[in-house]
Amino acid sequence: MTWTNPKLISFAQKRQNFLSGQSTPRDLLEECAANIAALEPTVQAFVSIDLEAARRAADASTARYRAGKPLSLVDGCPVGVKDIITNSDFPTQMGSPAYAGYQTPHDAACVYALRSAGAIIVGKTVTTEFAIGSSRQTTNPFDVTRTPGGSSSGSAAAVGAGMLPVALATQTQASTLRPASYCGAYAFKPTYGAFRMDGVHIMSPTSDHVGVIGASVQDVWETASRIALSVGGSGYPFMQRAGEPIVAAKPGRLIRLFTRGWSEMEAAAQEAFDEMVRHLSKADISIVDRHTHKEIERLEQTLESCLDRALELVVYEMQWPFQDYIDRYGDKIGPRIHRMVEQARSMSRADYADLLQMRRDVQRQLTIVANELEADGFLLPSSSGPAPVGLEYTGSRTFPSFANLAGFPAVGLPKLSVGGLPFGIQLFHLEGRDGDLCAYAQWIDEHLSAESS
Amino acid sequence: MTWTNPKLISFAQKRQNFLSGQSTPRDLLEECAANIAALEPTVQAFVSIDLEAARRAADASTARYRAGKPLSLVDGCPVGVKDIITNSDFPTQMGSPAYAGYQTPHDAACVYALRSAGAIIVGKTVTTEFAIGSSRQTTNPFDVTRTPGGSSSGSAAAVGAGMLPVALATQTQASTLRPASYCGAYAFKPTYGAFRMDGVHIMSPTSDHVGVIGASVQDVWETASRIALSVGGSGYPFMQRAGEPIVAAKPGRLIRLFTRGWSEMEAAAQEAFDEMVRHLSKADISIVDRHTHKEIERLEQTLESCLDRALELVVYEMQWPFQDYIDRYGDKIGPRIHRMVEQARSMSRADYADLLQMRRDVQRQLTIVANELEADGFLLPSSSGPAPVGLEYTGSRTFPSFANLAGFPAVGLPKLSVGGLPFGIQLFHLEGRDGDLCAYAQWIDEHLSAESS
Repeated sequence: MTWTNPKLISFAQKRQNFLSGQSTPRDLLEECAANIAALEPTVQAFVSIDLEAARRAADASTARYRAGKPLSLVDGCPVGVKDIITNSDFPTQMGSPAYAGYQTPHDAACVYALRSAGAIIVGKTVTTEFAIGSSRQTTNPFDVTRTPGGSSSGSAAAVGAGMLPVALATQTQASTLRPASYCGAYAFKPTYGAFRMDGVHIMSPTSDHVGVIGASVQDVWETASRIALSVGGSGYPFMQRAGEPIVAAKPGRLIRLFTRGWSEMEAAAQEAFDEMVRHLSKADISIVDRHTHKEIERLEQTLESCLDRALELVVYEMQWPFQDYIDRYGDKIGPRIHRMVEQARSMSRADYADLLQMRRDVQRQLTIVANELEADGFLLPSSSGPAPVGLEYTGSRTFPSFANLAGFPAVGLPKLSVGGLPFGIQLFHLEGRDGDLCAYAQWIDEHLSAESS
Repeated sequence: MTWTNPKLISFAQKRQNFLSGQSTPRDLLEECAANIAALEPTVQAFVSIDLEAARRAADASTARYRAGKPLSLVDGCPVGVKDIITNSDFPTQMGSPAYAGYQTPHDAACVYALRSAGAIIVGKTVTTEFAIGSSRQTTNPFDVTRTPGGSSSGSAAAVGAGMLPVALATQTQASTLRPASYCGAYAFKPTYGAFRMDGVHIMSPTSDHVGVIGASVQDVWETASRIALSVGGSGYPFMQRAGEPIVAAKPGRLIRLFTRGWSEMEAAAQEAFDEMVRHLSKADISIVDRHTHKEIERLEQTLESCLDRALELVVYEMQWPFQDYIDRYGDKIGPRIHRMVEQARSMSRADYADLLQMRRDVQRQLTIVANELEADGFLLPSSSGPAPVGLEYTGSRTFPSFANLAGFPAVGLPKLSVGGLPFGIQLFHLEGRDGDLCAYAQWIDEHLSAESS
């Protein structure tokens, strides 16, 4: 019943062989390079690749493993970087002609964190225009006629296709969990504020997150952990359990959320999700929902009512820098961004204050309900089923939006499929429960994988 | 008894004549240019100046006033920009050889806010190295042997010397209020989060603010207001009363703070401050302090105990990007920054969590005491007396640090002097009380000016 993506290359798994000497970071990089050579002409996940620089970095990492002195748990990991995150060694072009050839002298905080820990920056991955505008050339690795999802299109497609074990993404509403869901990859977006955001092109200070797309729960956890440890001093407490190994923990109770996202799903996708829920229930996980608990129904109503307003919050905050860009670049900035900035101009400071209050209310209600029901998190799809046909529309943002608006940590597990097309299971938890969340996700992932094999 | 800086050129005052047609933005710019020609060789407040571009912008502004259509209350205002804040039209060199010639394609959020409102960007002003390292060439406009204060050395000296009516500054501990105090200028640092910080070189996400140095309370208020209105959507409520004119309001009660800052002051400076306090008391402002209220004594003890720890918070958060800079640039990065990053490496995540908690405790205690005593703010010097001799040491950070750590709004009024050297009176208020604070500051400024004339 549940599905496993055979294309994925897990760094955590490969790394075992580095430690034992059976293989090397260079071997892994060559495996990625072979897959890139075979698949990239169709998938088009990358804006730029520098395999020669990557080979030099992989050889240096190989030498460190041979000396028994790897720098970290991500030493030797090939990584892609979404093209709205700056690098010192690649242009950062934001998916926009306005930034053609733009080069910064330094790495973004999250890139610095990984590079200084020995990770190998292979290239920049395709983003939709500034992570909110027009979509680009990337195709879904499971069906060339379908979207990979956005805005982290290239990061999700590269990992889902087995071209990379890990890629950096961002999420302002759905941009990490949704494309990972469509491309059969794992995803993790930590609690708001877990990482310094410096060097990431900002759209909405309240809503923007750096996320990680990877080939296993362990891959996304170790990568996020490393970033938090290195550049976590952003005025928020450190990510829970950053630096600790992930140990699978069975959740006792999960709150299942339907919401309008459920009605967006086709029957076959609903049935796949229902079957997965029944399977978890059989393992004695208590799964509660709006049918058993009135407070969950009320919570869903609140979440529903905030869905459009979550986008308004982004729209309002986008005015800077996008008004400046429109003034400078005119039609080089796509029509959707023009429309959003136009919409923002009709909003008032009072509207903005209401939107900030709405965000706090959502955080509070989710927290109250989870605590009252003694739940270990929320269970829902990562996207409204598999990727839709077409490359222009990057899919519904409904399911990932809730945890994003609250700034709560969320994980996507690529364990479901319909007609050979993947889609993900989402777990999210309360603010600051990042480590607990990943431990539950690991348990569920193992449990579903055991069943499917 | 109180003092007035005769060099200051108030934009708000000059603007009256633009509206009546008696003078123009171009006239004002030429007045600034004449002062720059006369004083800049000694004061050395600027890193770069483009008077020809400024003249073009001033002529465009002049045309707008003639047409009766100024863009805003800062249209035509000549502005300097601290050299850690990016511009599209000047390099931003951070006071560091590591950033020699560094040029960005876009304006920082605060620069965009002013430029798009018609303000005239005249040039970049000197900063100490990354606003925390070695000091630079600027001298105090009142005594060439003394520091202008740091880190916003050039912004304060340019305004204090009458070369500009307004300059953008930043403050991580004391870097706006202290140099303004030493140079005889007004200063305003709003509540934490009032402005988008994008495009400002960040040192400490919890402690960094953009501040405004200007020639009157109205100048700093109108400038800050414009920034808040234009780029205020940073996830915090809008600056109180942004966009409203400042109307002087007499405070009913102020809490006077001594702290160790007082013991750093020479007797003549203490006496000047005491006399000002007596003068306010005579006007029926109730001024309470540790001698009359035990809770103020306890509050001062808390503030004292946090002074060194406020710097530790900055030090911890500085690790990124300064570890990266040290790795890349070595000795191009000054010794103080090397020492701070070294210190940061000895700190733990638990230390950081404690420091964040310390910050919240200070915010809470200040709020409780002000509310209990029904006070309209806190009264203290802006610096520990006038500028010390020497250009290397930029002076004590004690007095401005308290409001900065709390993220509370603070104003500096250049109304005191000892031996011909200015120093400021500081008022700060609780979070979100920016408009009230500036209204009280305006009343006190008027009251003290009336007395001195």
